[in-house]
Amino acid sequence: MTRIDPGRLIEQTVAAIRPLDEYAMQLATERQAVLTKPRGALGVLEGLSVRLAGIARRCPAPVPFRPVVGVFAADHGVHAQGVSPWPQEVTAQMVTNFLAGGAAVNCFAAQVGARVVVVDVGVATELPEVPQLLSRPVARGTADLTAGPAMTREQAETALAVGVRLAAELVAEGHDILLTGDMGIANTTASAALVAAFTGADPAAVTGRGTGIADEMHVHKIDVVRRALALHQPDPADPVGVLAAVGGFEHAALAGFVIGGAAAEVPVLLDGMIAGSAALVAQALAPAALDRCVAGHRSTEPGHAVALRRLGLAPLIELDLRLGEGTGALLALPLVQCAARALAEMATFDSAGVTGKQGNASG
Amino acid sequence: MTRIDPGRLIEQTVAAIRPLDEYAMQLATERQAVLTKPRGALGVLEGLSVRLAGIARRCPAPVPFRPVVGVFAADHGVHAQGVSPWPQEVTAQMVTNFLAGGAAVNCFAAQVGARVVVVDVGVATELPEVPQLLSRPVARGTADLTAGPAMTREQAETALAVGVRLAAELVAEGHDILLTGDMGIANTTASAALVAAFTGADPAAVTGRGTGIADEMHVHKIDVVRRALALHQPDPADPVGVLAAVGGFEHAALAGFVIGGAAAEVPVLLDGMIAGSAALVAQALAPAALDRCVAGHRSTEPGHAVALRRLGLAPLIELDLRLGEGTGALLALPLVQCAARALAEMATFDSAGVTGKQGNASG
Repeated sequence: MTRIDPGRLIEQTVAAIRPLDEYAMQLATERQAVLTKPRGALGVLEGLSVRLAGIARRCPAPVPFRPVVGVFAADHGVHAQGVSPWPQEVTAQMVTNFLAGGAAVNCFAAQVGARVVVVDVGVATELPEVPQLLSRPVARGTADLTAGPAMTREQAETALAVGVRLAAELVAEGHDILLTGDMGIANTTASAALVAAFTGADPAAVTGRGTGIADEMHVHKIDVVRRALALHQPDPADPVGVLAAVGGFEHAALAGFVIGGAAAEVPVLLDGMIAGSAALVAQALAPAALDRCVAGHRSTEPGHAVALRRLGLAPLIELDLRLGEGTGALLALPLVQCAARALAEMATFDSAGVTGKQGNASG
Repeated sequence: MTRIDPGRLIEQTVAAIRPLDEYAMQLATERQAVLTKPRGALGVLEGLSVRLAGIARRCPAPVPFRPVVGVFAADHGVHAQGVSPWPQEVTAQMVTNFLAGGAAVNCFAAQVGARVVVVDVGVATELPEVPQLLSRPVARGTADLTAGPAMTREQAETALAVGVRLAAELVAEGHDILLTGDMGIANTTASAALVAAFTGADPAAVTGRGTGIADEMHVHKIDVVRRALALHQPDPADPVGVLAAVGGFEHAALAGFVIGGAAAEVPVLLDGMIAGSAALVAQALAPAALDRCVAGHRSTEPGHAVALRRLGLAPLIELDLRLGEGTGALLALPLVQCAARALAEMATFDSAGVTGKQGNASG
């Protein structure tokens, strides 16, 4: 099979993203008003159900019942700068753990009925050769972003295309909601640099403790992000350039996964800091892609809150999580499904023979 | 079958509530530290999993997989004071809707795999005679709490006993987690009075807009609560007396459901404002019962936040819900299940061959 050039695939994918269907959203808003509950009583879930109708282009939207979490794994050259207490081999070891079903992402996916797809998009150390692992490596880890660009533009586009293609393939297989997951020791450093680059926030405001580093390493990590930004002067108007300068392969693939999901017109449920920083890339490439994104949770990483504000997304869950892997997205999945299900299946005042509120025809 | 006196049943149930199992909790805390994730990375869910082990008295706790929501429906004499724009018949109509599967509680329960049990504990108007409805009416609605006690002490104990017995029966049938639900037009007024009585908060701070009432009715509703408290001077040291003065039959039954669940040593997942005010009764009867309670969500009713603070419970979800029925508890159920599942099924660093964090043996 001849594959089209990654750059062209990205362009075509971005061009395929339509605005949400306003008519379906109007119907959903009207339907929410006649369901057997006080208006607005389902809070955030009502607006979410309206957006799901806009994404599906019909009202009610179908309840997403074939969820899949794409877990993109990669390594980071900046690990050499001592930004994490975990050895780089842990990325590959955790990929092995995902494939064996022993990680948090596996437990949560099993509980909420989601498939887990693990993708090697650039792990540095040896991985098991098993058919369940999708092998799409761009390189064996990025370069050190404090010394030069983390990757070439071509590599950034190749990694983006991995995500775009996987999103299209999973939707073609029948999956109706995509969840983002990730693994990569040191990837909160790259995430912080991406958030700072796209939002203009100070590195100290967006660089967190990742897996739980101590004060000294945290100060050093902030300095690493600050030096990277000073070195590359990334231009937020050039998202592929920003990715190449300070991103990771999993960030690029996740950004592609978001725009691929948006083009395929399914909701994309975002996990935490890594997903949030990748979604900033997707937003810069295709602002309309964000209309399909739902923020699963807000992590304790300070940069995630900054990213969510720029993305214009309110998180469904805030439980002080900071694990990644897709765990926060999986926890939020039942909330999205319940929002859709209420719109699709609740009785109306008329159909159930329930008397409306008195003295106020408007609700 | 001879049934024991309700007052004696309540006493026996309270006496049966043991402290949580400290050893199981210690094992769970130790286990969380060796699971394949950074320590603390699952945030609130880690502490929750420890508590679930304490409730189950073993580590890991079994993952609750047979959930049931008990939806207690009743009417309120205070409805005559004009505290709700909804006619009283809506309580019975919504019960009919629950039984037909058309309400939000049914949609959410179907999505998360929970059984719905609907209990008439004191609905004022006509109900369908169907076997699925558990008919346990104490009376056809309470009396008007602005004119006298809402119920007699005997009625309060009878309603409490309904909840205690149902909890025991459901656990005996194999249910391993109880969720609270409710229905009763005007029941946020009784809830506000209960919260004010138990916490000493001013009625204006705990009386909300319920189904979404306008300013004028809200001011009137606050005055109704204030007058009720002035009339009854409820003594928080006498929880049955407080219930009788200003509570509802569903509040009493829910308080019984909580202590019954605690005595049966299963987690009790609380819904919103009605459940929160009922849990204050349970707390006054049996402080240790609260160790088994998990707050599913925080509703927009201001009294709910006040109740949760007194209960010492942090809500899992905050999505501006104000529906009741058990919807907020059902949305939180997968979070509780995922917390248990992570503790029970995640691999350890040793079992998965994942290298630990370097340079810090304590994690």
